[in-house]
Amino acid sequence: MKVTDKLLQAHETADLPATFSFEFFPPKTEQGIQNLYDRMDRMYHLNPTFIDVTWNAGGRVSKISNDIVNTCQSVLGLETCLHMTCTNMSVEIIDTALREAYESGCQNILALRGDPPLDAQVDANGQLIHKGEFQYAKDLISYIKKQYGDHFCIGVAAYPEGHPEEDNCDRVIDYLKEKIDAGGDFIVTQMFYDVDNFIEWCHKLKAKGIEAPIFPGIMPITTYASFMRRAKWSEIKIPQGFLDILEPHKEDDFKIRELGCELITKMCKKLLDSGVVNHLHFYTMNLEKATIMILQQLGLVTPEVNDTGLTGGEILPWRKSLNPNRTNESVRPIFWKNMKFNYIVRTKDWDEFPNGRWGNSESPAFGEISLFDGSLLRHSGKKLLELWGRPQTMKDLSDLFIRYLNGDLAMLPWSDTPINAEINSIKQDLITLNEKGIFTVNSQPAVNGARSDHPIFGWGPKNGYIYQKQYLEFFMPRAKLDTLRANIDKINRIENCGTNDDYKVLAFFAVDKNGGLQTNLKNDSVPNAVTWGIFPNTEVIQPTIVEKTSFLAWKDEAYHIAQEWQMVLKQGDDGSIDLLGKLLDDYVLINIVDNDYVGENKIFKLFEGIDCL
Amino acid sequence: MKVTDKLLQAHETADLPATFSFEFFPPKTEQGIQNLYDRMDRMYHLNPTFIDVTWNAGGRVSKISNDIVNTCQSVLGLETCLHMTCTNMSVEIIDTALREAYESGCQNILALRGDPPLDAQVDANGQLIHKGEFQYAKDLISYIKKQYGDHFCIGVAAYPEGHPEEDNCDRVIDYLKEKIDAGGDFIVTQMFYDVDNFIEWCHKLKAKGIEAPIFPGIMPITTYASFMRRAKWSEIKIPQGFLDILEPHKEDDFKIRELGCELITKMCKKLLDSGVVNHLHFYTMNLEKATIMILQQLGLVTPEVNDTGLTGGEILPWRKSLNPNRTNESVRPIFWKNMKFNYIVRTKDWDEFPNGRWGNSESPAFGEISLFDGSLLRHSGKKLLELWGRPQTMKDLSDLFIRYLNGDLAMLPWSDTPINAEINSIKQDLITLNEKGIFTVNSQPAVNGARSDHPIFGWGPKNGYIYQKQYLEFFMPRAKLDTLRANIDKINRIENCGTNDDYKVLAFFAVDKNGGLQTNLKNDSVPNAVTWGIFPNTEVIQPTIVEKTSFLAWKDEAYHIAQEWQMVLKQGDDGSIDLLGKLLDDYVLINIVDNDYVGENKIFKLFEGIDCL
Repeated sequence: MKVTDKLLQAHETADLPATFSFEFFPPKTEQGIQNLYDRMDRMYHLNPTFIDVTWNAGGRVSKISNDIVNTCQSVLGLETCLHMTCTNMSVEIIDTALREAYESGCQNILALRGDPPLDAQVDANGQLIHKGEFQYAKDLISYIKKQYGDHFCIGVAAYPEGHPEEDNCDRVIDYLKEKIDAGGDFIVTQMFYDVDNFIEWCHKLKAKGIEAPIFPGIMPITTYASFMRRAKWSEIKIPQGFLDILEPHKEDDFKIRELGCELITKMCKKLLDSGVVNHLHFYTMNLEKATIMILQQLGLVTPEVNDTGLTGGEILPWRKSLNPNRTNESVRPIFWKNMKFNYIVRTKDWDEFPNGRWGNSESPAFGEISLFDGSLLRHSGKKLLELWGRPQTMKDLSDLFIRYLNGDLAMLPWSDTPINAEINSIKQDLITLNEKGIFTVNSQPAVNGARSDHPIFGWGPKNGYIYQKQYLEFFMPRAKLDTLRANIDKINRIENCGTNDDYKVLAFFAVDKNGGLQTNLKNDSVPNAVTWGIFPNTEVIQPTIVEKTSFLAWKDEAYHIAQEWQMVLKQGDDGSIDLLGKLLDDYVLINIVDNDYVGENKIFKLFEGIDCL
Repeated sequence: MKVTDKLLQAHETADLPATFSFEFFPPKTEQGIQNLYDRMDRMYHLNPTFIDVTWNAGGRVSKISNDIVNTCQSVLGLETCLHMTCTNMSVEIIDTALREAYESGCQNILALRGDPPLDAQVDANGQLIHKGEFQYAKDLISYIKKQYGDHFCIGVAAYPEGHPEEDNCDRVIDYLKEKIDAGGDFIVTQMFYDVDNFIEWCHKLKAKGIEAPIFPGIMPITTYASFMRRAKWSEIKIPQGFLDILEPHKEDDFKIRELGCELITKMCKKLLDSGVVNHLHFYTMNLEKATIMILQQLGLVTPEVNDTGLTGGEILPWRKSLNPNRTNESVRPIFWKNMKFNYIVRTKDWDEFPNGRWGNSESPAFGEISLFDGSLLRHSGKKLLELWGRPQTMKDLSDLFIRYLNGDLAMLPWSDTPINAEINSIKQDLITLNEKGIFTVNSQPAVNGARSDHPIFGWGPKNGYIYQKQYLEFFMPRAKLDTLRANIDKINRIENCGTNDDYKVLAFFAVDKNGGLQTNLKNDSVPNAVTWGIFPNTEVIQPTIVEKTSFLAWKDEAYHIAQEWQMVLKQGDDGSIDLLGKLLDDYVLINIVDNDYVGENKIFKLFEGIDCL
């Protein structure tokens, strides 16, 4: 979606004092990128109108910018704006970047000239001799308009305190006007601290007939050194008041951040009060704390983020992808609930969501997942060894699962994110299972009509009700499967379910590494909705299902994760027992649904008398 | 579905002593056909495996047979078998009848030779000279096979006591064998009373290698005269025991039916005990009482038919159409709930049910209904005047609605069927509204998770839960609409619903004769599921919706009904006030949904202070 439309929408539907956005830059290492994703994922909850991602020359780094844009759009549900510089850039590089942005569903480009290369030549008149097709940002703007019509919303950079290469402020505004006339839709300014000058400058733009919305660039103050360095580098004025307050504490980083936060907050308030802007654009420098502090002091973030990781108002219990190929997606299998990055990557070719429904999972495109890029290996082996050590026995493995359930471990091989409060009501039961050597990888408790604004289970629009069927997924030794089946059959008989029909209260799927499948369902290809919501004036929304084909796909991934972990443990191993080989060979992956979300839960009763340690 | 498959299925899934089927014949008058439909509709609840419909020569009557088959398949949800006779029949007539049966979703034909015409000629050898393409039933069977492959399941007639034209019983069995060999799949026998002979005959068929299932033709005894006449006409033996019991009471019809029921029940028991058959085929003569008595005495009907008119096990709260064009239909608008015949007819071109879903009601095929065949005029004006008299005032109209709600009137212009127990919990509220001159045409109470076997609200497979949002639809003077709107807004505000969003607890649509529409929804084309069910191991089923486009279509019909009634009243009118003209011009049709099925119902509170009489 275009940021100008998002802004209009945001200011129309809520009485906000201001909207805001975050700028990030592509980190240099793989681990840095993963850390940035985790950070962006957290900052999503602050509800930025968009984020933008800087771009640097061609080659590897611009590719990474595009990858980040794609991840933000597809996985994180963050609306993005991609920076693009054009000077000394080949048309091919520009074309590639635009096409990839387009395919990711990105609709916003910040069109920049970019810095001239260090070896730039100057002609007889002192003008830079540019290489490539584009000399100025306006050339890039025209090119984007020619290639993509009105698809992209185009931002342009502006310099409230003049451009380093041009002292005449009026002329700088004229250049800006040219960019707007070429097709610029919004203005992002360089950082500044002189608010009076900025407000005056905004009035000048108005006077010149520039009506595009202006997003002032706000740079939080984190350390005294970086504050001074950046101001100098950008050739901007530091008000004496800033120096008077900060200088005495320049050795105390903590104090500087605190005082900086106060100064910037005051500055933002003055900006908003002046009425010249209603949006703040934060240069985060890939850090979150300082920006969050300012937003909190401005009263722009509501601290109530609910436990499912949604900020409220979302239509689904998971974050909707902004990638155009997934726009209609309204159903996901439960299996990747704790592995949301992987789900999007693995299922990108599952293009069968007619009407946003699960549709026919027998279609050939379903269930084929690509495992070429590792699940665990997005983290370094070193990090994984630090996290989980070198388990020697099934008891050690069991301890890891229990530490995770207790919140003492931030992730497990089969769970990307820390345990959340959703499972509090069944946590003790889950711990008991793991103590018996039944390794629980996924679960949800039954919910019988929680309000849609429930702090733990709520999602979707207001005035609705949320339901869940209890779900449990775990690894268990194959040798115990017959006993479990018998226990399932017994309860189904007590619940008066025929063995010959599919309306059984307890249903299970069990599968081993090689795909050997057992189930107590006759027609095993019907999706079972395990999470649904009832809302005013619409159809029932049923976003989470348990379904065979996708379970088999998840099985591939779940065992692949075990193999990856096995590889990590084998590196520099002292010859201890191959625990994960045992898990891979002797354990089956099982899921159980208790279809009776109204009556007493029955799943944990199934394990009485089963001990696997 | 083929009757042989239905039989296998029925005997596989339930431990039934026997299945059964009913034969009907096409009545001679339009009113007779309507009465038969009502009877079939009632007899549906007895759960016959199929019904069959006789056919008589070409022309009008065979057309009626096809119409009945189509109505049974499409509207009544009854699996049909169409009789066809072939002697002296043109290929065109056969082709037409087969094609129409095919298009109705009928998959069963009872292929008969038929009686020779009265003016039939005999050749030198005493053989009948036949006209047309077909001489014997086996010719028709071959023809059907040639034209339709295995689409049709073909039944053949058999004569356990010999054929009137052939005394040699063995030869009659040989003829039967020829029909089976030509492609006959099941055998329907002529009526008989001599069970010993029948059992012996069945053994003879087995000995001759005839393995097709045999459906013995059972003719209930209704009067002594008809009993004697039919036996004589069919040239079958009446056991002396029958005569001894019946003859003394031959003047007492009531007693004859009672005794006849005992005799036939005993006969059926003996048949079933013998093991030669597991299915009974009743010649109903278009009557229901005698057949039902026998079925009850045999213990083949379970008296517990639930109030929604379903016999249990149906997947939806309305009867699923067996017409192939509607196979995927899983959603219906609520508006025709009391007019199920009309719904099928009106919406036959609404062919947009992708995946059985409501889909895009903005599609051009939606909402166009054909009103050429009247809704009321399927009944005679005389009958309607008898039913409803000549209301002179709105108070008279109000009295009619109240009599209907109290069960003292079997139908209303906008309700085809008597009031049912579903509305008991809101009946007094409905009566109060009608007393105020607010004419309620459709409603359902809120249901928050009734079990799917609930005697009143239950539908769908077992172990499920049923939900409903409260719904009310009514005619009210346009002049009162503003007050009602204000009351709706007030409650929505109390319930904390923004006026600017679509998550309001109370939503309404109001429309006048000319289509002038008011609603408090911004996006008014989203379907609102008002009935849904949660079942084990499947998706949520949401079969009933409230939706704008179909409401506008129903509006056309609802006002058209008023016009038709107006026409009836104008015939022979004494010049009284044109009450229905007033309804047509000054009243709006309104529907309200209370989306909060969990909390207290709010709809009836909206009318405090509104009086329209």
